[in-house]
Amino acid sequence: MATSFLNDLMQTLSDRGRSWIGRPREAARPGDLAELGDALLSRRGEASGVVLARALLDGYAAAPLAARLAFLTALADRFGPDRERLDRAIAAYQADPTARAMHELQEAAEPRRQELVRRLNLAPGGTAALVRMRQELLGHLKSRPDLAEVDRDFTHLLSSWFNRGFLVLRPIDWTTPANILERIIRYEAVHAIDGWEDLRRRLEPADRRCYAFFHPQLVDKPLIFVEVALTNGIPRAIAPLLDSNRLPQRAEDADTAVFYSISNTQKGLAGVSFGHFLIKQVVEELKRDLPNLKTFVTLSPVPGFARWLDSERRLDHSRYFNADAKEVLSALDTPGWHQDKAIAERVRAELLPAAAAYFLRARSPGGRPVDPVARFHLGNGARLEFLNFLGDLSEKGLSQAHGLMVNYRYDLDEIERNHELYAEKGDVVAAPGVRKLVKAEAPVRELA
Amino acid sequence: MATSFLNDLMQTLSDRGRSWIGRPREAARPGDLAELGDALLSRRGEASGVVLARALLDGYAAAPLAARLAFLTALADRFGPDRERLDRAIAAYQADPTARAMHELQEAAEPRRQELVRRLNLAPGGTAALVRMRQELLGHLKSRPDLAEVDRDFTHLLSSWFNRGFLVLRPIDWTTPANILERIIRYEAVHAIDGWEDLRRRLEPADRRCYAFFHPQLVDKPLIFVEVALTNGIPRAIAPLLDSNRLPQRAEDADTAVFYSISNTQKGLAGVSFGHFLIKQVVEELKRDLPNLKTFVTLSPVPGFARWLDSERRLDHSRYFNADAKEVLSALDTPGWHQDKAIAERVRAELLPAAAAYFLRARSPGGRPVDPVARFHLGNGARLEFLNFLGDLSEKGLSQAHGLMVNYRYDLDEIERNHELYAEKGDVVAAPGVRKLVKAEAPVRELA
Amino acid sequence: MATSFLNDLMQTLSDRGRSWIGRPREAARPGDLAELGDALLSRRGEASGVVLARALLDGYAAAPLAARLAFLTALADRFGPDRERLDRAIAAYQADPTARAMHELQEAAEPRRQELVRRLNLAPGGTAALVRMRQELLGHLKSRPDLAEVDRDFTHLLSSWFNRGFLVLRPIDWTTPANILERIIRYEAVHAIDGWEDLRRRLEPADRRCYAFFHPQLVDKPLIFVEVALTNGIPRAIAPLLDSNRLPQRAEDADTAVFYSISNTQKGLAGVSFGHFLIKQVVEELKRDLPNLKTFVTLSPVPGFARWLDSERRLDHSRYFNADAKEVLSALDTPGWHQDKAIAERVRAELLPAAAAYFLRARSPGGRPVDPVARFHLGNGARLEFLNFLGDLSEKGLSQAHGLMVNYRYDLDEIERNHELYAEKGDVVAAPGVRKLVKAEAPVRELA
Amino acid sequence: MATSFLNDLMQTLSDRGRSWIGRPREAARPGDLAELGDALLSRRGEASGVVLARALLDGYAAAPLAARLAFLTALADRFGPDRERLDRAIAAYQADPTARAMHELQEAAEPRRQELVRRLNLAPGGTAALVRMRQELLGHLKSRPDLAEVDRDFTHLLSSWFNRGFLVLRPIDWTTPANILERIIRYEAVHAIDGWEDLRRRLEPADRRCYAFFHPQLVDKPLIFVEVALTNGIPRAIAPLLDSNRLPQRAEDADTAVFYSISNTQKGLAGVSFGHFLIKQVVEELKRDLPNLKTFVTLSPVPGFARWLDSERRLDHSRYFNADAKEVLSALDTPGWHQDKAIAERVRAELLPAAAAYFLRARSPGGRPVDPVARFHLGNGARLEFLNFLGDLSEKGLSQAHGLMVNYRYDLDEIERNHELYAEKGDVVAAPGVRKLVKAEAPVRELA
Ligand SMILES: [Mg+2]
Ligand SMILES: [Mg+2]
Repeated sequence: MATSFLNDLMQTLSDRGRSWIGRPREAARPGDLAELGDALLSRRGEASGVVLARALLDGYAAAPLAARLAFLTALADRFGPDRERLDRAIAAYQADPTARAMHELQEAAEPRRQELVRRLNLAPGGTAALVRMRQELLGHLKSRPDLAEVDRDFTHLLSSWFNRGFLVLRPIDWTTPANILERIIRYEAVHAIDGWEDLRRRLEPADRRCYAFFHPQLVDKPLIFVEVALTNGIPRAIAPLLDSNRLPQRAEDADTAVFYSISNTQKGLAGVSFGHFLIKQVVEELKRDLPNLKTFVTLSPVPGFARWLDSERRLDHSRYFNADAKEVLSALDTPGWHQDKAIAERVRAELLPAAAAYFLRARSPGGRPVDPVARFHLGNGARLEFLNFLGDLSEKGLSQAHGLMVNYRYDLDEIERNHELYAEKGDVVAAPGVRKLVKAEAPVRELA
Repeated sequence: MATSFLNDLMQTLSDRGRSWIGRPREAARPGDLAELGDALLSRRGEASGVVLARALLDGYAAAPLAARLAFLTALADRFGPDRERLDRAIAAYQADPTARAMHELQEAAEPRRQELVRRLNLAPGGTAALVRMRQELLGHLKSRPDLAEVDRDFTHLLSSWFNRGFLVLRPIDWTTPANILERIIRYEAVHAIDGWEDLRRRLEPADRRCYAFFHPQLVDKPLIFVEVALTNGIPRAIAPLLDSNRLPQRAEDADTAVFYSISNTQKGLAGVSFGHFLIKQVVEELKRDLPNLKTFVTLSPVPGFARWLDSERRLDHSRYFNADAKEVLSALDTPGWHQDKAIAERVRAELLPAAAAYFLRARSPGGRPVDPVARFHLGNGARLEFLNFLGDLSEKGLSQAHGLMVNYRYDLDEIERNHELYAEKGDVVAAPGVRKLVKAEAPVRELA
Repeated sequence: MATSFLNDLMQTLSDRGRSWIGRPREAARPGDLAELGDALLSRRGEASGVVLARALLDGYAAAPLAARLAFLTALADRFGPDRERLDRAIAAYQADPTARAMHELQEAAEPRRQELVRRLNLAPGGTAALVRMRQELLGHLKSRPDLAEVDRDFTHLLSSWFNRGFLVLRPIDWTTPANILERIIRYEAVHAIDGWEDLRRRLEPADRRCYAFFHPQLVDKPLIFVEVALTNGIPRAIAPLLDSNRLPQRAEDADTAVFYSISNTQKGLAGVSFGHFLIKQVVEELKRDLPNLKTFVTLSPVPGFARWLDSERRLDHSRYFNADAKEVLSALDTPGWHQDKAIAERVRAELLPAAAAYFLRARSPGGRPVDPVARFHLGNGARLEFLNFLGDLSEKGLSQAHGLMVNYRYDLDEIERNHELYAEKGDVVAAPGVRKLVKAEAPVRELA
Repeated sequence: MATSFLNDLMQTLSDRGRSWIGRPREAARPGDLAELGDALLSRRGEASGVVLARALLDGYAAAPLAARLAFLTALADRFGPDRERLDRAIAAYQADPTARAMHELQEAAEPRRQELVRRLNLAPGGTAALVRMRQELLGHLKSRPDLAEVDRDFTHLLSSWFNRGFLVLRPIDWTTPANILERIIRYEAVHAIDGWEDLRRRLEPADRRCYAFFHPQLVDKPLIFVEVALTNGIPRAIAPLLDSNRLPQRAEDADTAVFYSISNTQKGLAGVSFGHFLIKQVVEELKRDLPNLKTFVTLSPVPGFARWLDSERRLDHSRYFNADAKEVLSALDTPGWHQDKAIAERVRAELLPAAAAYFLRARSPGGRPVDPVARFHLGNGARLEFLNFLGDLSEKGLSQAHGLMVNYRYDLDEIERNHELYAEKGDVVAAPGVRKLVKAEAPVRELA
């Protein structure tokens, strides 16, 4: 039953020990990798485990798509819980629900793939390989709902390994190694970086900062990074911040730190959240280095606004605006509307209240704010500070949010409370200026 | 129901945010810490989680014994699985054993303490605090068998966090920071280090090496370390190796690396094994640095030998030796026996075969070798190379092993195979010279 | 007499101590800086010296050209030796030439600018500022021969501070900080680097290396760097080495290390030589890391060849070639000559002997080889290994050397001897294949 | 004429290149090393220079005393200036005193040993070897005044290489490598450190700091270090500071930093001063880290006081005290005098005015304060703040200063001015409380 691939490997293993590693070998066929997984799980000790784990991960990386997908499928159906053991454990538990019986029940219910993935992680480079494997898995999820349980187990294990306690914050600047900087260029997701000179403009000036989280197992890969501008006062538009002709100021003269871009780099770690730890730690770091900084805000995109607004405008009876408003907002359908000052002023009068409603009233079916960036910052305990009309005139800014940007404010003294209100009651904490824009009845939480 | 401790904390939390941290406060009373655990588990988000986790760990560290024990007890009975949810999950699974149902079953069967410990790990210094907490837990296990399940969960989580992929090997030498070196002095478990000058003799000479594993979360704490002597030929006794008057030789002239001491430092990580990874990695490191090294062996104590031998001698019918042998071995009961050359020679003739039987024949009730050090090295794939009569004349050496020491040999080309034989069949691989000493019938595995 | 600039400074110095530093102030006028120099030299202690040194260097950097040139001029005429003291010292020495008298004579003869420059070096960033000052000085030398003595003193002091004992060799690769890499791009002097992607092709592939010397006082400035390609066999042309489509090979499979570019970065350190230390240390480093490397050669330009050849061709009676040869070589005057295969072959037959003569016979008025790159490598103890016809078809290669490149070989076992022969007798050590090309009479040293 | 030692070396050099290095060889005889020096100076290039330099330094280290002393003597008489060249240069200068002629005069007057020592510095480890050579030289100076000029040249060159710009300040603490810490133990010159536990008490507590200067060429050797205690208020006695039972306080609660011990480690760098740079840089470092620190003082010994006082007491007519005072001070001759409270009080009344006179009036023949520690701190710009009666009851403290200690205060705002007053006019700046103690007539500078 064992295929030649596995036979070959096992033979090498017992004959010549470690020396087989690195040898070219037949590519794995569908089924081979799962057999290797069985072998890895069946060994009692750890001595050969690292060798097998490495073989499986190398084999996976070199295998054709069909063999890789076969392995992911095997994770779902072949490496689930041991059903017989599980049924016995249930029976024992129901007969006598001791702590011991509950423990056995939990162990029996644990899919065997969890232990398999743990053992794979022992191979050199195992963590990185597993993050890549999960990235591939995520790509299949839509068409292969049966892999969802496999993904849950990956999330469970990756969350444990990438928990905040193991992450290290490091400044990114113009003295950072080039192999790390090139990843900053590649993964910037909010305001694209156009090559090394553009990168330098974001890192080198005295009033710029950048920080990233690293994990000891992925030393040269920033997991998530935030770009910061030091300013006087809260900026309401992105273009002046990124203007290549602007004059930098001394960091010691700034009173405000602006988080204008936050990007994740590892798709394979989706759902393993560390963004909010990053922001809080950066706030503390900046406060310590530059006591002159008093205000910490974002300058954020509003990626869901245009879609929401446009669908509300199509409704016969929007809760949020009447026919007059709709009439005014129909100007948005004409490209270049914002360049006509008069039109823009009329749009502003309707768009800002609509935006306030978007944040404070509109809710997803799950009862949470519609905007994903809002959910992130509000969930972190930030408050919605300003709505910025025409804050982003880039093509992307106009198409996703009709140019709207917002500031979320991080005040360490109220983060915990805001977070509690949001997490427990769904309250969105907003500055008075934003709340006033909501025209109507429904109560919105006062700022203390 | 919430105590004043928790009330106080929660109040501070919502009123003044993070600023409460570090304030002196009433010590926790029994029950307080468990309530804090409930609060930590009940929060949906992570924002206040770090604060609560830190409060609980600080509170635990400052609490009196009774309150600490109360918390450990609560982990066992209050933070087990949610029984109602578990029963529902079993019913659903039995109705329809879908992947989803199995997943829910596993989650329901997971004791709530696992998630609690994961959240505690998010606090700054959380990992170190949890390792200390487990060390205390281990101390209670004998008298409190009900805590065994708690310990199993700790082992599960610590194994995940301290898996080999996250460990970093570093050389320890005379340029190592003093705060790390003082731990080497303190934790050396095999041949005690008598102060800084003695330490220097083990680190500074050209023919000495030392390596340790570190974890990113416990940066200044070596988890396990091994001391190495570079020699010509395999040494058969410890005293010349540690002689303070010996003349060091050039590392480039040695052909043998001797692991003469391996020590764990963190009691709280008992059962989380990384020793065998250490040895293999050190062998590879040394091979690369010093291609002249051809042989890698230990010079090891035999901590269980005297006890085993003495109890065999008390048996009426030992499987291993007859009346004549017993008569000769009775010399061991007279202190100083080894100083009489004639007696020593007679003892040698009987003691070495007895030692061969101890390693190759004698088995624990579980079917494994009696000697714990043997189990470690054989489980790593080493082979038993030499038995060294009167290799350790120290008080400890004489009392635990009648002076016997042994060498285990690490040959990277046969480690995997030896390990397989040992792990799968229980075979002990030994050099011919050792095997020949076994007088009798039962087959002992040949060395290829 | 003291100007307001100096008065202002002195006042601040005594009134408010250090706090004046960093304040904007009137730019220095001609004369101000020299007065500051007098003040710095006249202080007995060091306490205010650093402040004055910093003021002078900051003042120099901010001063207009006229004031800077005035200061350099003052170094020449105002900060020469103290003539009265010198005359007294001569008299004393001539009266009684004791060791003491000679010492006083030497001190009296030392220009006061030496001590001034030493004191300037005490300011933070002083070394870098002095290197820049010397760079400016070098630019004036042609038109201002009176500054030559000042330059000699700079050379004396900089040679002392930048002596080889204080230089640190570091590898440059794709993990090197970006601020250092940008200097590699900027200062590459032999084969220009066209941006970051081109740089990456020189650093990241497995068969590329780069090393630089750094000085502790100029931490982020590589002083000199060498780019290395690992190859099989000695390459005879540059284009394949730099081809962006080439396939890298494993470093462990190469047998040859090729130094194909060496660049100095600090014009202000001209004449302070460390190039040959760099090459020897890199050879040793590479040998240790990659024992497979057996051959160490350069692939070098021949910057003086075309000029020399063309002037020889214009002579009525060249020592090196006759009318036929001249006729053939006249093809060189037609752009694109090398693309005609037949012409190129004919040129080769005359050009290579001419090149051999250029290296082995032709001498500068001072009796040394004409080619500056040859002087560098031969002076280091390398030997001339190969002449490579059409090794460099770039515009620069054709215009400066009619496409010729050469290999100099570094054999550590013969470096000292070659160097001695070259330094003591002017002998150029060349491989037999090169020597054979010299058609005529004069003896050329045999290779042992 | 060349000895076999040199012949041997030269032969190896040309035959087998670098491979001779490290071979055992005949020890150098008197004369060998000087010949090697001649060879080193006569070479034109640098290629063989490093080899020769290394041979000379290794040969010196291995040579017997006679050969070493012969080499130092040769430095004095054989490697002085080239007399013929010097006489020619003088003649040319007297004929026409051009800049060129002055330059040649200076070069001719430079002893050849300067260039020799510069070339020796190119050998690996050369700087350290030259520092050791100078240490030996210093030991001979008293009996060999003819070596004084050699020492002057060493001082000149070492001052250049160890100038402040090349020194790096680093904190020393309990995480510092052991090989550096053992030097702190060994070289502490003021209050001896009694082993590693005593060292730990000076480094590890929250209210202790230590800083050292390092040089890139002597990476593991602290050149000078200062030990600091953080206190509340200015301490007046040493014992409580070093008390092993004292309770440390938080660094953030201290208002005063006390420099209680400053030690040089390299005797071979005597006369190359960097102490005052150390103190000022440490003051700045501490101010930045701990803004709560307001006062920076020393707690210093007074090593010359007892000798001065005792000799004044022996004078018939002391300028500083009358017969009554002498009578009281005669108590000092009785060991244990300080334990009798009444006697101690009477002594205090006379001893403190005497101490004030010692600092403010008494002058060496050169017109400077008698006390060497006073000269150091006053020369740095510190002011004399307090006289502490019975501040040091240790045997050393009583014998060298009758128990007296003093505080010197470093106020960055007045350091430059104090230094100027001291350096230019010899004024000792002292606090009013000290000045008041001077009984008599002569004016002492007021504190502004
Ligand atoms: Mg788990
Ligand atoms: Mg000089």
